[in-house]
Amino acid sequence: MPQLIAKTRDGIALSREEIQALIAGVVNGDWPDYQLSAWLMAAYLKGLTDRETFELTGAMAESGGPIPEPLGLVDKHSTGGVGDKTTLVLAPLVASLGLPIAKMSGRGLGHTGGTLDKLESIPGFRVDLPPDTIRAQVEKIGVAVVAQSSSLAPADKRLYALRDVTATVDSIPLIASSIMSKKLASGTRHMVLDVKVGNGAFMTTLDRARELAQLMVKIGAFHQRHVTAILTTMNEPLGWAVGNAIEVNEAVACLKGQGPSDLRTLVIALAAALDQSVNGTDADTAHARASQALDSGKAWEVFVRWIQAQGGDPRSIEQPLPLAPVTAEVRAPNPGWISSIQTQALGEVALELGAGRHELGEQVDFGVGLECFAKIGQHFDQGELVARIYARTPLAAENAIAGVQQAFSWSASQIPAPALILDRIASA
Amino acid sequence: MPQLIAKTRDGIALSREEIQALIAGVVNGDWPDYQLSAWLMAAYLKGLTDRETFELTGAMAESGGPIPEPLGLVDKHSTGGVGDKTTLVLAPLVASLGLPIAKMSGRGLGHTGGTLDKLESIPGFRVDLPPDTIRAQVEKIGVAVVAQSSSLAPADKRLYALRDVTATVDSIPLIASSIMSKKLASGTRHMVLDVKVGNGAFMTTLDRARELAQLMVKIGAFHQRHVTAILTTMNEPLGWAVGNAIEVNEAVACLKGQGPSDLRTLVIALAAALDQSVNGTDADTAHARASQALDSGKAWEVFVRWIQAQGGDPRSIEQPLPLAPVTAEVRAPNPGWISSIQTQALGEVALELGAGRHELGEQVDFGVGLECFAKIGQHFDQGELVARIYARTPLAAENAIAGVQQAFSWSASQIPAPALILDRIASA
Repeated sequence: MPQLIAKTRDGIALSREEIQALIAGVVNGDWPDYQLSAWLMAAYLKGLTDRETFELTGAMAESGGPIPEPLGLVDKHSTGGVGDKTTLVLAPLVASLGLPIAKMSGRGLGHTGGTLDKLESIPGFRVDLPPDTIRAQVEKIGVAVVAQSSSLAPADKRLYALRDVTATVDSIPLIASSIMSKKLASGTRHMVLDVKVGNGAFMTTLDRARELAQLMVKIGAFHQRHVTAILTTMNEPLGWAVGNAIEVNEAVACLKGQGPSDLRTLVIALAAALDQSVNGTDADTAHARASQALDSGKAWEVFVRWIQAQGGDPRSIEQPLPLAPVTAEVRAPNPGWISSIQTQALGEVALELGAGRHELGEQVDFGVGLECFAKIGQHFDQGELVARIYARTPLAAENAIAGVQQAFSWSASQIPAPALILDRIASA
Repeated sequence: MPQLIAKTRDGIALSREEIQALIAGVVNGDWPDYQLSAWLMAAYLKGLTDRETFELTGAMAESGGPIPEPLGLVDKHSTGGVGDKTTLVLAPLVASLGLPIAKMSGRGLGHTGGTLDKLESIPGFRVDLPPDTIRAQVEKIGVAVVAQSSSLAPADKRLYALRDVTATVDSIPLIASSIMSKKLASGTRHMVLDVKVGNGAFMTTLDRARELAQLMVKIGAFHQRHVTAILTTMNEPLGWAVGNAIEVNEAVACLKGQGPSDLRTLVIALAAALDQSVNGTDADTAHARASQALDSGKAWEVFVRWIQAQGGDPRSIEQPLPLAPVTAEVRAPNPGWISSIQTQALGEVALELGAGRHELGEQVDFGVGLECFAKIGQHFDQGELVARIYARTPLAAENAIAGVQQAFSWSASQIPAPALILDRIASA
């Protein structure tokens, strides 16, 4: 083991066999934490070659056993941002396009709950389903979103937990292999990656995000997967809603052809990418098909069937889900244009309201959250509504108001709206 | 903790307070191994500033408690080599010059036992003495060599054990701070460091050895210690004997004005450095005094008193200590000059004979070992004795012969003898 560590430390690439031995040691416990963390720091500082990253990802993908027949045809991953309810819309949308999706989600820390928590804000919705049930559901209605099994890429799980406490998270090859190992482990052939860039994302610069996206696409290609990465801005929240139930409500609006335009644009782009990947559809046709599936109500119909299939009460989504009772509003102090938004800070307001988790295992409050109607470059008249807060207590609401107000910068002169989609990278 | 790791990872120097917090966490267990090893790898790859190294050394030195009144006036450390029995001669020699020495030794892995093991090959010799006994002995006869207390720089102990298994040993600042923390912890004001260079030493190049020596001297100066580093060759064993009892016998010969000249040259140089450091003696006078103490028998008299004081049977050193019963000889295959010696390989022969430890806690065989009469540049006639082996069994002797033969390279033309002392670095 020290010899493998020394190789990476000295910038000498590990062979396929060495990487497989390393990952075997991660799974069977032969490698103690202190040696793994030394290796991780060496990998962080010296990097890994593309080939090493491909092999590492493959070994981690197979660390829970052989890769199974995929439950779905397509998959999607987002690197995470504020207000990211994309899956709630995208999953039924692609299913309505004839692209079955069985998405597995984790349940980590975050400003809001993850996709699983958001779905659980629908009364009765269950995310822990056995593989056979998932398979039958996907065959029947084309969509399932479930909790990721603990046997999915267990090597990644152990390494990630160590990286988190040893300052070795922020490494492109380690991030790429972590994400892609779980995607490969599901066996799915076609996938779209939403790589977020900006002050509310893990990747804050376009260069780093592009580097990550390119590497993930290359990892996919090496393992015979069709991967499209779409780089999207996270210098402002996605859509308006930030929370759990409130994001479901916004997703429902989008599925009914309403709601914020950036969310709609993004889900159409992601769905189109998958349609292109699977069917070789040209870009314009793919976009038109996806828009049409939203506008025609087809995607909404699949959504209703899907929620019902996983135990959700269909009546509960006939109306918006109820939100926390104490509301507060933030209004424009002067007329002007939004020049920047501290997206991360808005996420932290949601977290403080109770929408997310400081620690693993914490319960999230489905009903709290906020709506941020501000977008960079948008004009507000004095006194116009910029954000609305849904809190449990007046004190929480008051704190949230202060946090939200501070998150906005204003300009007296016009500011251009930034692009939502910054780049697109697909395997050749 | 991850923040401190991240700073070192990013090449940002830690403050004095941060380093003290780190070392406090090493001692009280707040820092788990996996975070320490990530920090060690970051320190290995990004280096530490001199200032960080000074503070790290100081914090480790104090990690077992406040630095006590020193038991001796002078101290000595060697970075380790093959046949290094220097302490056995130097300690009584400097005591005979009026420079009290209370040397603490560890008991690590090695080709042969360490100084403690070598001393224990003298029947009755005890190395575990309480501080009061050590102090009284040093006051009375000027010399004690004892096992280092487990409370001596415990932070270094924990960090070293981790470095050993995480490929982070070979870092100049980490090596320097490890060595110097133990030297500072003893409180001794004057010390000489024998930094070995060559194919039988940890530092194989003069540049690296000089870098290490300079840093250790600077650490000493920062902490108000007088440190002289002497760089000496380890491209051949020191003296002839490699083993335990056999090295004691050679040390005794040296104390009686006999034995190999390189050992004598080295102990005189080290003793003179300490004399110069303490008394401001000029170099020539210091060398003359040390030679005279050897030649007059004064150092030998102190040796006898010392061995007796620590429980050694005085009769046992009247004659050479007995060696293992199976002897074998290596003779020159042709006339010629020794052109190089694989010093490390000779050490491994001794280890295989049983003179050292593969694993901590193993018992060493005091009686086995070898005498290597070859020195680079030395001429041998065909059939002349080059080495003698002392083994437990004929098979072990046979294996040793093959190993020793392979360690020598021969030249048909004359080869210059290399210098023993390569450089000398002292605090200004």
